Order: sequence, then structure tokens, then C-alpha cells
Amino acid sequence: MTELTSPKTALVVSAHSADFVWRAGGAIALHQQQGYQVHIVCLSFGERGESAKLWRKGPSMTEAQVKASRRTEAQAAAEILGASIEFFDLGDYPLRADKETLFRLADVYRRVQPHFVLTHSLQDPYNYDHPMATNLAQEARIIAQAEGYRPGEKIVAAPPVYCFEPHQPEQCNWKPDVLLDITRVWDKKYAAIQCMAGQEHLWEYYTRVAQQRGVQAKRNVGITAARDIIYGEGYQSIFPRVTEDLA
Amino acid sequence: MTELTSPKTALVVSAHSADFVWRAGGAIALHQQQGYQVHIVCLSFGERGESAKLWRKGPSMTEAQVKASRRTEAQAAAEILGASIEFFDLGDYPLRADKETLFRLADVYRRVQPHFVLTHSLQDPYNYDHPMATNLAQEARIIAQAEGYRPGEKIVAAPPVYCFEPHQPEQCNWKPDVLLDITRVWDKKYAAIQCMAGQEHLWEYYTRVAQQRGVQAKRNVGITAARDIIYGEGYQSIFPRVTEDLA
Amino acid sequence: MTELTSPKTALVVSAHSADFVWRAGGAIALHQQQGYQVHIVCLSFGERGESAKLWRKGPSMTEAQVKASRRTEAQAAAEILGASIEFFDLGDYPLRADKETLFRLADVYRRVQPHFVLTHSLQDPYNYDHPMATNLAQEARIIAQAEGYRPGEKIVAAPPVYCFEPHQPEQCNWKPDVLLDITRVWDKKYAAIQCMAGQEHLWEYYTRVAQQRGVQAKRNVGITAARDIIYGEGYQSIFPRVTEDLA
Amino acid sequence: MTELTSPKTALVVSAHSADFVWRAGGAIALHQQQGYQVHIVCLSFGERGESAKLWRKGPSMTEAQVKASRRTEAQAAAEILGASIEFFDLGDYPLRADKETLFRLADVYRRVQPHFVLTHSLQDPYNYDHPMATNLAQEARIIAQAEGYRPGEKIVAAPPVYCFEPHQPEQCNWKPDVLLDITRVWDKKYAAIQCMAGQEHLWEYYTRVAQQRGVQAKRNVGITAARDIIYGEGYQSIFPRVTEDLA
Amino acid sequence: MTELTSPKTALVVSAHSADFVWRAGGAIALHQQQGYQVHIVCLSFGERGESAKLWRKGPSMTEAQVKASRRTEAQAAAEILGASIEFFDLGDYPLRADKETLFRLADVYRRVQPHFVLTHSLQDPYNYDHPMATNLAQEARIIAQAEGYRPGEKIVAAPPVYCFEPHQPEQCNWKPDVLLDITRVWDKKYAAIQCMAGQEHLWEYYTRVAQQRGVQAKRNVGITAARDIIYGEGYQSIFPRVTEDLA
Amino acid sequence: MTELTSPKTALVVSAHSADFVWRAGGAIALHQQQGYQVHIVCLSFGERGESAKLWRKGPSMTEAQVKASRRTEAQAAAEILGASIEFFDLGDYPLRADKETLFRLADVYRRVQPHFVLTHSLQDPYNYDHPMATNLAQEARIIAQAEGYRPGEKIVAAPPVYCFEPHQPEQCNWKPDVLLDITRVWDKKYAAIQCMAGQEHLWEYYTRVAQQRGVQAKRNVGITAARDIIYGEGYQSIFPRVTEDLA
Repeated sequence: MTELTSPKTALVVSAHSADFVWRAGGAIALHQQQGYQVHIVCLSFGERGESAKLWRKGPSMTEAQVKASRRTEAQAAAEILGASIEFFDLGDYPLRADKETLFRLADVYRRVQPHFVLTHSLQDPYNYDHPMATNLAQEARIIAQAEGYRPGEKIVAAPPVYCFEPHQPEQCNWKPDVLLDITRVWDKKYAAIQCMAGQEHLWEYYTRVAQQRGVQAKRNVGITAARDIIYGEGYQSIFPRVTEDLA
Repeated sequence: MTELTSPKTALVVSAHSADFVWRAGGAIALHQQQGYQVHIVCLSFGERGESAKLWRKGPSMTEAQVKASRRTEAQAAAEILGASIEFFDLGDYPLRADKETLFRLADVYRRVQPHFVLTHSLQDPYNYDHPMATNLAQEARIIAQAEGYRPGEKIVAAPPVYCFEPHQPEQCNWKPDVLLDITRVWDKKYAAIQCMAGQEHLWEYYTRVAQQRGVQAKRNVGITAARDIIYGEGYQSIFPRVTEDLA
Repeated sequence: MTELTSPKTALVVSAHSADFVWRAGGAIALHQQQGYQVHIVCLSFGERGESAKLWRKGPSMTEAQVKASRRTEAQAAAEILGASIEFFDLGDYPLRADKETLFRLADVYRRVQPHFVLTHSLQDPYNYDHPMATNLAQEARIIAQAEGYRPGEKIVAAPPVYCFEPHQPEQCNWKPDVLLDITRVWDKKYAAIQCMAGQEHLWEYYTRVAQQRGVQAKRNVGITAARDIIYGEGYQSIFPRVTEDLA
Repeated sequence: MTELTSPKTALVVSAHSADFVWRAGGAIALHQQQGYQVHIVCLSFGERGESAKLWRKGPSMTEAQVKASRRTEAQAAAEILGASIEFFDLGDYPLRADKETLFRLADVYRRVQPHFVLTHSLQDPYNYDHPMATNLAQEARIIAQAEGYRPGEKIVAAPPVYCFEPHQPEQCNWKPDVLLDITRVWDKKYAAIQCMAGQEHLWEYYTRVAQQRGVQAKRNVGITAARDIIYGEGYQSIFPRVTEDLA
Repeated sequence: MTELTSPKTALVVSAHSADFVWRAGGAIALHQQQGYQVHIVCLSFGERGESAKLWRKGPSMTEAQVKASRRTEAQAAAEILGASIEFFDLGDYPLRADKETLFRLADVYRRVQPHFVLTHSLQDPYNYDHPMATNLAQEARIIAQAEGYRPGEKIVAAPPVYCFEPHQPEQCNWKPDVLLDITRVWDKKYAAIQCMAGQEHLWEYYTRVAQQRGVQAKRNVGITAARDIIYGEGYQSIFPRVTEDLA
Repeated sequence: MTELTSPKTALVVSAHSADFVWRAGGAIALHQQQGYQVHIVCLSFGERGESAKLWRKGPSMTEAQVKASRRTEAQAAAEILGASIEFFDLGDYPLRADKETLFRLADVYRRVQPHFVLTHSLQDPYNYDHPMATNLAQEARIIAQAEGYRPGEKIVAAPPVYCFEPHQPEQCNWKPDVLLDITRVWDKKYAAIQCMAGQEHLWEYYTRVAQQRGVQAKRNVGITAARDIIYGEGYQSIFPRVTEDLA
């Protein structure tokens, strides 16, 4: 019964506190519009590796200040996108996870019961934290599916997992097999992007990424979906899709 | 206007006259039930390479007889599955296609205006006719999309193309990213399979293939699709899917 | 001298206590018949991740009970297959190994001096314990080959390592390059399978796997091996084979 | 009956008239010693692309002279290796094959009934004739297996096909999974190599190739095959091996 | 002697008459500035497949008119980039090449004696003409290197071959290993792009491609090349680079 | 200012104390001749896994003696090659690195500010220490690039990283895209090789490797680099090269 009335949900596992914005902001806003409850886990604040602008403010800057600033930005972006957010604060460069962290994330899976999961690519020679996050998200999902982990709790189904776009896609051997039309939520995504004051150099880069994926989506649209697409996001599936309709 | 009232359509390009049954019979029946008009092109009758049982009947057997027998079987199977069928009769072992054949198939694309296309795998070290058919289906699709081919005709959109399962999937580097639930049309597929009197040794093989893919489909089902799946068919997409829903 | 009279040996490294049955039961029984002493190491009991049926018996079920039940099943299966078995009890979901575990397994290599090794696939997005076991088996083999590890002990040669079939082979990028004819030991493998009372839903699945690999083996048999094959097991080699005969 | 008394056979398909020497001379001599009848098909003489030394003799050199010289060298090498040889004389740079050539080679398969087949790699960006030969060898094998090709003739079984080593192996994505110990026939291979007067610059190159593969073979030898290996040849299998022994 | 005084040269093989502009316009202008003579071969005018805008002008449009228009555009672009250009007029959709075409292109290689070659990607599921052009360029290069092809002529060295960027790079399994800084010739490339009146929808797309590759180039620059890069072009090498400097 | 006057630098990360000699000795000597300061980090002495000859001297041999011997050999080789060297002494078989080791190596990056980096291949089924070293070198490089790691220090640029040749290249899926001409420093490399008294069986193996790569380099040389190459080293790039010249 509850199955029918409870909302659909999605889980986003983000290595650093801004990744979810550049890479999955469109998907988050789009599904929120469709009634999904989207929950974001930021494994770290990206305080070391992705906060160059803050550190350049001078020697008085502290790690605590950087983290606080990054948290504020990420919360503002999540709010615009309509998602809940939590921070594991594991540290970055390097990101490391022990068993307890794995169980902590498995418990989030159990609580959220996601209909789908978004996370990083499987490889990234420029950023070792990203595939680390992917592996954590994957292994936590497996544990959350196991009857013998916290027996008696409701296990999760087998939600599809999508890898969002890394910064240099070909170098990461990332190949999108899904192009998501985010045209009607682009304004929200761009508003969320603008919360990332510390990485302003990326705003236009990811606008162009969205435009390129939009053009590509139009090129791959069959008859049934002949819509006017301007902005897109690419995703690579890890698991096969189960369906009854091939169109 | 016609767009709204005309039925959805699908095109199946089969190297030999029985391939569509083993490999895509479920998809054909399933979409026919959903209102699709499915059209099958058999490039050859498989008279040389896939009619061993007929040839073993003795030295009086002729190629014309083999072809006729194979045509009859394929027509019966197509009728059970609810699809129209035509035969290019290009010969098999080896299958070869010149420019005229390419245009002939492009013209079928123009006529059918398919919402999706099913054909063989990209590689098959056991069967060179199969990837030949795939390449023909792919190149004809491209030509049918070109404004400059028979200018003035209605070009086709960009229908998704799915590679159906080869006989020894791993050896063909074929990896399914779609698992189609064919449980409710299995009886039709098995009836169509039984039309293939000349290849009775494959009936149980492909029944087991359907059962294995069914089990695998259940393993990959998320919350939204928690149905009781018994029989499946696997497909590998060539192009990225354009969508607005990731669940 | 001892070289000539001592029996041939094989080592199987199994992540959970039932994996060796589904995936390598035929190879174990077949080589036992040929005079090999086969030794199985179960790294865990699969108590969390592969004992759903036991956990569903109710809240009174304990981990100790699950492990005991799994141990009994695995021992019964090993006995039918004619192999010795030991349990490392490392825990599953997640399986983790430290240096001491690595040395413990290296010591098993030194003791067994295996002529070949069977273990899991290199990748498995559905099961992180499996590739973990493969990596442990591989690294322990390397250490057991090193003169400087426990100097003075007899080092191991370079035994071939074969990856047995995962549950969804294509998704694991597993591609068999060896098809083992297990027809004459199938009854033993199926008897061993039936010891796995907790996973009855897999009995028929793995029977069909054996039938499919059997049909495929027949398709790949040349003149020299034209036997009547019904059941098979697939393996993927990690290292090149050294031989003097290509037929 | 004839099956039991007739010798084992092997077929080598060589794009140019010297390829079989550098790449498979050891396998040919080794299996000849084991009682195999080995037959070599040279698709071309390599008159354009692999006869630079002859052409540099001056403007009076003719294609007929080059071919004659290459034929003499290849025949001498085949004799040393103990194999029969025939020449299709299809021309090289580019090598092209029509349907008649395909059937001609299929007829060789039918006549030879090979226990295994040796040919080129699947890719070679330095030499388009080589993969052309591989594809011809593969497709002819498929046709020779078809009951409907020249019905009534004895079809061939499914002989394993091995790709021999290209000149720059990594660039061809060639990865050996078989290392053949050719130590005891090395003298014959080197004698055959010395017949190739026109390509003396390759003698030492392929001696070193044999030495490197020999060292690698020693590294991959398990207990059962602890022989003293000095020279080797590498091969990549196209099809899975069917066996009852994994050691 | 002539070696020292003759200019460096480059050859571009373009399937359709506009490809060289979008994909290699920067490389052409950049090397022209460095003193290279760059020669472009357009295998077809792209009259069928890449001239939609012209065909949409109405039923009076003829193939001859389309070709003439495309030729004019391509010549204007080549002039801006500072390259010579010739047209093979082989037809497109499908592009096909026989032996005579192969020799014709080999003769261009002999005449130009290129220091490097630019052509299409190895795969493109959206455009079969592109890999066809790549294969033609590769095989012609091999023939032009053969002493026995037109004996007495000066053969070509082994020029590096670079695959330029396809429209949907990941779908073509294209992975750039060279990022060319085209910042100081961007104005020329954009001027050439503007000659392509028939494909105005691509102007901004390829501007963004150049911007993205520019950003990526900056990310991959070491100490020795710390320049201010804004625009880039990506290339994938087919052959290994020979060098004496790794920085 | 210092930027202009300080010398170019390179960093070599070697898993065991001899790897840098076999695999990168030519590159080290060559760049030293060109004015580079090359610094080598040996993560371990290879005391367990690569010192068989020492251990075979008898039961009185100790790990301390083995390490001392290996250190002496490596220092002698580095001196011949003209490089500085330091030893992390992390232990081998297995090599393991914690966070502190990672930071220690990142600090070397910061100190050296390398123009390029040489390390092991990404995969090696024969040697798990090698890819471990590669990953350590890669992750330390990323950390050394981060503004937030030891804020205020000078971060490193993005030096290219090259994987040197493993012992069995194809088995490691290693594919060279750079062939370095080391002909004029071969005598130095061979002198350094001869310092490795404990691994004399590898001297000729790696001489032949250098000869084979030399021949291959000649095959890949275009017009601009038509030098007489005898000895080479192969490298695989991890990142795209940024350049303004394609010849």
C-alpha cells in the first residue's frame, strides 16, 4: 500500500560538494519537478582539491572556513534544485572510506529506497576521489540489498545506477548511453551553478557541456520524442535497463 | 496530422530467414500487442548455412526447394508474431550487398518510418553474414536520413537500433544493456519457434536463453518495475537513449 | 623424485561458501577423477549477502547459525566433489583482506603447490566480494612465487589461473576462452548443487548454464575432440597457455 | 575408417609468401615432427609491398621476376619446414578477394580438413593485407562448415584458429594467449628464415622475437610443463578451447 | 639536398567537402603559418548527406547545383586557411572506393610526401562515409610506402596519421591523445567556418567544441608549455610518436 | 624569475629498486644529457620479490643484507645515468601505501616540480606492486596540484605521465604511443644494467627489448626524424599531449 502512495526517490552520491551541481543538476531538478524526492550525499567538501579560489585569498584562510563556505554554497544549490542534502565530511585529496563509512552510506540507501542512483564515472585519471566515490556508492548499494545486513530491515531493490559526466569525458573512458533532456529545468540548473562562487571559471564550461549534449540529444531522437531540445546531460548506465518498450 | 493517427512501427533486419524468431520473436510479439506494425526484412533464406537438416535429406534436394521450405517456415512464424515480412533473397554464406541492395533497404526505411530497429550484433566470428546484415541495416538507415537521397521524400528520424543476441554472446563481444520482459508473449514466441522445423535442435537452447535473460531481468529490476518476469530477451543499443525519466 | 610420485593438485579460491559449487563444481569433480587433489578455500560463508532464505526464517536467526548452516552445506558439497575444504571466515558484504590474510593464502599456495587455480572474474558490478577474492588469489600467488617470502621454503611455479563464470557474464566483461566438458561428472555436480538448500532458486539456473556451455562446447570442437558433449563450464584464462600442441 | 588412419592436418593462410616463415615457421616444423601434414596457402607473393630489396636492383626488374624469386624462396622454406604449399597469386598492396577466391579457399578447407588453422592478426594499421587475409580465412572456414555449400561433400569440423604475431604486436591490439615452445625445431625455423634472401634485415629481428617469447613462455609455465624453453612463438586464439584438462 | 630546402607538407583526407573545416581548420591554418604546404583531398562534396539546407530550397534543386555550391564553399574555406584543395567527386551516402581510387590517392601521397596526415575517426555509427575515408587514407598511405608500387618513384616515409574529432566523439570511441593549441589561428578557422553557409547550425557547435578543447588543453599543460590557451582541436594518433624529448 | 634559470626536471617512480634501470634507463640518461635533473624514487628495494639470486646464497642471508645490496646496485646505476635517487623502503610483495606515504610522495612532487613523470603500467597480472606504484604516483601528482594541500606552497603544473614497459607488455594491456630513440645513450643504459648483478638473466632480455623498440621506431619515423635508430624505449601516455606541431 505504502508503495503506491509514497513518492518516488533518487539518491545522488557526490565526491565533493559541488560535483552534483555541474554534473547532475539538471537530472535533480527535472525529477524533482516530476515528484521525486531527491537526496544528495556529499562525501567531502572538496576543501583541498576544489577550492583554489578560496585558498588564494591568503594565508589566514583555514580549512574550517573553506568547508563552511563550501557547505553554504552546496546547500543553496540543493535548495534551488529542490533536493535534500547531507555531508559526510570524509576529507578529500585523498578521499578514503572505511567499513563504517560504507555502512553509513548503506543505511542512507535503506532509508531513501532510491528508484535510481547518480554518481561519478568508473575511471578518472585526473581525479582519484571520483572513482572512489563511485565504488563506495556501488558497494553500499550491494550491502543495502543484502538480507543479512541489519536483518529485518527493508532491503533495497536494484536501482539503476548512472555515471554522470566527468570533466574530460574521453580521458575517463566515459561513454554516455543516456541523454537527458533538461531544457525545461535549465534555468534552475544555471541558478544552482551560480551558487558556486568559488568555481566561477566552470560556469560557462558546463553551460557549453549542456548545449553540446542538447544538440547531440536532438541527433539521437526518434519519432516518438521529437521535442525541441536545447540543453542536455549525459549519463552512462552501469546496469542493463529492464523494460517492455523499445521505442 | 497523420503523425498522430498513424500507428507506431518497427523494422527488423534479419540476415537469414529464421534469425528474427530466435533472437527477436519476443520483441516483435510484444510490440505488436502494443499496437506497433512490425515489418521484417529477411536478407537471405539461410539456404546454405542454416538448413543442414534439409540438405541431409539426400542428393535430390535442390536450393530452390530449400528456399521454398525456409520461406514457408518464416512466413508462418511472422504470422504468429503478427508481423509483415519480405525476402530480399540475396544468398547466404556469403551474404553480400551492393549499392542497389543498400538503396532497396533504405527505401524500406523510408516506407516503414520505424520507431526502432532490430538487427544483428556488430561482431560474430562464427557467422560473417550477421555483422554484414548489421552494417547494411546501419548504412541504409543513414542514407534514409539524408535529404539528398531521393530529394523530396520524407526522410526518417533517428530510430534507436538494437542488436539482438547472437548464438555465443561473449565471443561476439555483445553486451546487453536492455533486458526486455517478454513473459506475456512467450507462448507466441515459442509457437513461432516451433515453425522452424529444420532447426529443432535450437528450440530448447533458445527457451533456456529466454529463461536466463528472464532471471537476469529480475535481478536488474528497480522499484518501479517489480513485476514477475520469467522470460526475457537481451539487446545491445548502438545509440544513446534520449529520455526525461531515469527510473 | 617426489615430483614424479606426488599427485597433481589444484586450488579453488571461493569468495563465499557456495560459489565453488555453481561455478567450478564440474572442474573439481572432473580433475578429482583424473587423480588431482583439489583444495578449496572459502574466504567467507556468504552469511550476509547470500543467505537470504535463512534470514527470512525470522528474527531469532543469528549470524552464528547462518554460518554453521552454510559451512555444513559447503562441506557436504566438497565431499561429493571429492575435494578438501577450509574456511577463512573473513566476513562478507564487504569482504576485506589485510596483509595477514594475504600471507595466510600465500601459505596455502606453498602447501598445495597447485597445478592450476580457479577463482572469480576480474570484474562484477553486482558483487564486489568476487573481484576482491580474485585479486587476493592473484596477489597471494605472486607472493608464493617470491624467493624472499619465507626464504628457504619451496616456492610455487606459475600455475595457470582461470576465472569461473559469474552470474551475469556479459555485465562482468567475462569472456570464456576455455569450455570444459563436464558431461561425465554432471551427476556429481548436480548432487553437490543440491546440498545448497538455502539457494534452491539457483539450481535450475546453473543447470541451464551447464547445458548452454555444453552446446557451445560442441560448436567449438574440432576434429580431435569430437565427443558427445552435453554439459560444460566456461573459464577465462588470465595468463597465456604454454604448449607444444595447437590442436 | 579413414578418420582413424589419416594423419592430422593443419592449414596456414599467409597473406604474402614470407609471412608463414617469420610468424609460424616454428609451429609448422613442430607439428610436422608430430606427424601433422601442414598445408600453406600464400594469397600473394608480396611482390609490391614486401620485396623492396629486389625492386632496388634497378629499373630492369619486372613484376614477373619478383614473383618468381619470391615463389622460389617460399618453396624452399616450406620444404625445410616439411609443409606443402600453394600460391593463389591474388596480388598485394592491395590484397583483394572476390567470391570465387572465397570459394577457392573454402575448397582447400574441405580438401585439407584441418585440425587447426594459423593466420594473421585481426587488426594491423601497418598492413591492410594482413587482416584481409584473416577475414578471408575466417569466412572460408565458415563456408566450408556449411552443409549447403557443395552439398554432399564432407564439411569441415570447427578447427581452432590462431592469429600469429604481427610485426608490431601492441599496435595491432594482438595479445597472445598461447605461447608455443619451438625450442626443438628452432634450427629448422632459422634455416627457413634464411631462405628469405630478400628480407635479410628481418632475420635477427625474428630471432629476437623467438627469444623473447621463449623467456615469456618460461615465466608462464606451471609444474606440469617445467621444460627448458629457449625459443617460442606467440598466438592469439579466436575461439574458445574445448578441453577436459586445465593443467 | 632538396630535403633541406623543400617546405614541410601535410595531407588532409576529408570524406565530404566541409569536414576539414570543422574538424581540422585550426591545424591547417596553424601549420600553414609555420611554413607547411597543406593539401586537402575532398573525397566527395557531401551532396546527399550533408547538404540538407540546399535540398530544402525546393524541387528544382539539382545534384549538380548542390555540388557546385559545396565546391565553392570548400574552396573559399581552403583559401582562408591557406591550403590547396582537390575534389575526387566519388559521391557520398554511400562513399565507395575501388582500386583505381586507392591508387589515385596513393599518387597524391607520392606527390605531396606529407610530414603528417589528418583524416577521420576509425569508427562512426552515425556516418559510414567517415571511417570509409579513414580506411582509404590508411591503405593509400601503405601503398605509397611500397617500393613495388610504381617502381622507381620516390616512396613516402611513415608520416604520422591523426584522426580528427567526429561529431559525437564518445559514440565513435574516439579518444584524443593530442590537444592542439589553435588559439592564434582561431580567427582564421572561424572565418573558414563561416564559408559553410549551408550548415550554419554547426557554426556555434564547433565554436564550443574549440572552447572546450581549449580549456582541456590548459588542464593538461605542463611547465614547458604554460601558455594562455583559449581554443583547441583534439586528435587521436594511430601510430606511436618517435621522439627524443618527453617534456 | 627562478622559472627561467632553473633546470628542467623529471621524476621517476619505481616500485622496486631496479625497475628504473630496465624500463627507463635510456630516458633518464637521454634527458640528463639534455640538461634535465632527473630524480628517482624507489618505493621498495624489491627485497622479497626480485632478489632471488641473493636469497639462493643460503639460509644465512638476511633481509637487511638483501636491501643493502640492492641499494648499492641502484645507487651505482643512478650515478651512471646521472640521476639523483632516494628510497622509501616501503617493503615489497606486497607493496602498500598509506596516507602518509602518499603525502611523502606528493611532497617530492612539490620539491622536484617535474616536467614529466615516468612510472609503471596501469595493469600487470604478474606483479601487483607495479600498478600499485602507478596509482601512488598518479594520486600523489593530483594532491601536489591541489591548492588546499599545504596551502601557500607552490603547486605543481600538470606534468605528462608516461608508463614504461612492463615485462610482458601485451599481457598488461600496455600499448606504447611513444617510441623514444635512446641510441646515443645506449652505452650508458647498458652500463647501468650491468650494475644489477643480482638479475643477470635480464641483461640480454632488455637489450633485445631495446633493439626491438629501435627497429619499430625506425618503422614509425616520418620525414622530419629520419635518423638512424638502433635502440629504443616504449612509453604509454596517460594524458593527452598539448602541442602546436603535429609533425
